[in-house]
Amino acid sequence: MTGCVYGVGLGPGDPDLMSVKAHRLVTSARHVAFFRKTGRAGQARTLAGALVPETAIEFPMEYPVTTEIPVSDPRYNQTLSAFYAKCTEHLRALAEAGEDVIVLCEGDPFFYGSFMHLHDRLKAHVPVEVVPAITGMSAAWTATGAPITWGDDVLTVLMGTLAEDELSQKMASADALVVMKIGRNYAKIVSALRAAGKFDKAWLVEYAAMPNQTVRRIAEVPEGYKAPYFSIVIVHGQGRRP
Amino acid sequence: MTGCVYGVGLGPGDPDLMSVKAHRLVTSARHVAFFRKTGRAGQARTLAGALVPETAIEFPMEYPVTTEIPVSDPRYNQTLSAFYAKCTEHLRALAEAGEDVIVLCEGDPFFYGSFMHLHDRLKAHVPVEVVPAITGMSAAWTATGAPITWGDDVLTVLMGTLAEDELSQKMASADALVVMKIGRNYAKIVSALRAAGKFDKAWLVEYAAMPNQTVRRIAEVPEGYKAPYFSIVIVHGQGRRP
Repeated sequence: MTGCVYGVGLGPGDPDLMSVKAHRLVTSARHVAFFRKTGRAGQARTLAGALVPETAIEFPMEYPVTTEIPVSDPRYNQTLSAFYAKCTEHLRALAEAGEDVIVLCEGDPFFYGSFMHLHDRLKAHVPVEVVPAITGMSAAWTATGAPITWGDDVLTVLMGTLAEDELSQKMASADALVVMKIGRNYAKIVSALRAAGKFDKAWLVEYAAMPNQTVRRIAEVPEGYKAPYFSIVIVHGQGRRP
Repeated sequence: MTGCVYGVGLGPGDPDLMSVKAHRLVTSARHVAFFRKTGRAGQARTLAGALVPETAIEFPMEYPVTTEIPVSDPRYNQTLSAFYAKCTEHLRALAEAGEDVIVLCEGDPFFYGSFMHLHDRLKAHVPVEVVPAITGMSAAWTATGAPITWGDDVLTVLMGTLAEDELSQKMASADALVVMKIGRNYAKIVSALRAAGKFDKAWLVEYAAMPNQTVRRIAEVPEGYKAPYFSIVIVHGQGRRP
């Protein structure tokens, strides 16, 4: 019998916000796989922590170093593609040998997650099941203590990696706004928020639902601030409210 | 000691997708409150099912009938506002008497949820805590078996209640798209999808993560179809994928 590869969303960072299903799959795992940067423990593996049984066989999937290759260079995609193919090969072999594999995923696997690159390569060959999860952005707007959307508000989710012009244009036409992938893009995002007239309404949430969570208005963040990768910018909608 | 009012997101519909925290709060509740339409069991109460202890005191909050009043009429907001104020009064009295109250919420409370109207009225007076949850849209894109966003895709979330012109314009500029509040707006949404050139790529997910879930391409849905309220339209992003 063929096993199944589970892409299990672990949610935003607090193990208490994992779904009951994810919790059960992780605590009963025989094989776990997870992405990590070389030399790091891996965010998803850290989140799962001691829930992973000691007897589970672990398969860390270490991203190839790509910092010297610009995203626009074809070698960037080639390097990543070869990496995902190699990971897929291992997971597929396990499933074909009858083993279930739990792939630990931060956030929700089908929402800007790396698991989708494995899913795309596995789905024609072995059973794959995705377990959705609470997104980092849900944790971020909850942390601000105010709803992200009211009434008929339009919500726009932007990646901080976009060009400044596109960012400011999309920001201006949004009611409620979420910006992810902040890190090195922070100064550009702040500049786009100003151009879109949304600077005064914007919040910066770092490490949402993690022990070191911080929540501030962007107007209170010092100039030249280095925001961590795990930060999210939030602008709340202002729609109809009885 | 003052109690706390918990706005507990129960997720999209499958109790197995409830967070560990929500599960614990619901199963140990002394007081539960939930919205429902008159004469109905209530979607959130049904979702919580037998997890609510038999000993819990239940407070159903029945929406006033507003179908004869157009949303644009000031009496619509007045009627709803009076209703929310009355619910708030009861929950506040319980918390002030030292009782914790679990307000059962479908989906994620701060994402187009009714709980925000109670939160807004309670927060200055008694402790309120919101527990985020898996959104209906996460369950819907997971049900389609494909990621909603890749690379730097922009995600736009629209309410089907918007005017057709605004819908089609926002649809055209989106990479990935979610439309909620379908029901009676279905024909208008389909027409807007055609105008935006997204008809062929659109999916209709009904009752995501519930036992009666269905997933179809909109191109396969018969003309004149009556979509239920619990349906979500999905158009997947087509961004960069190594």
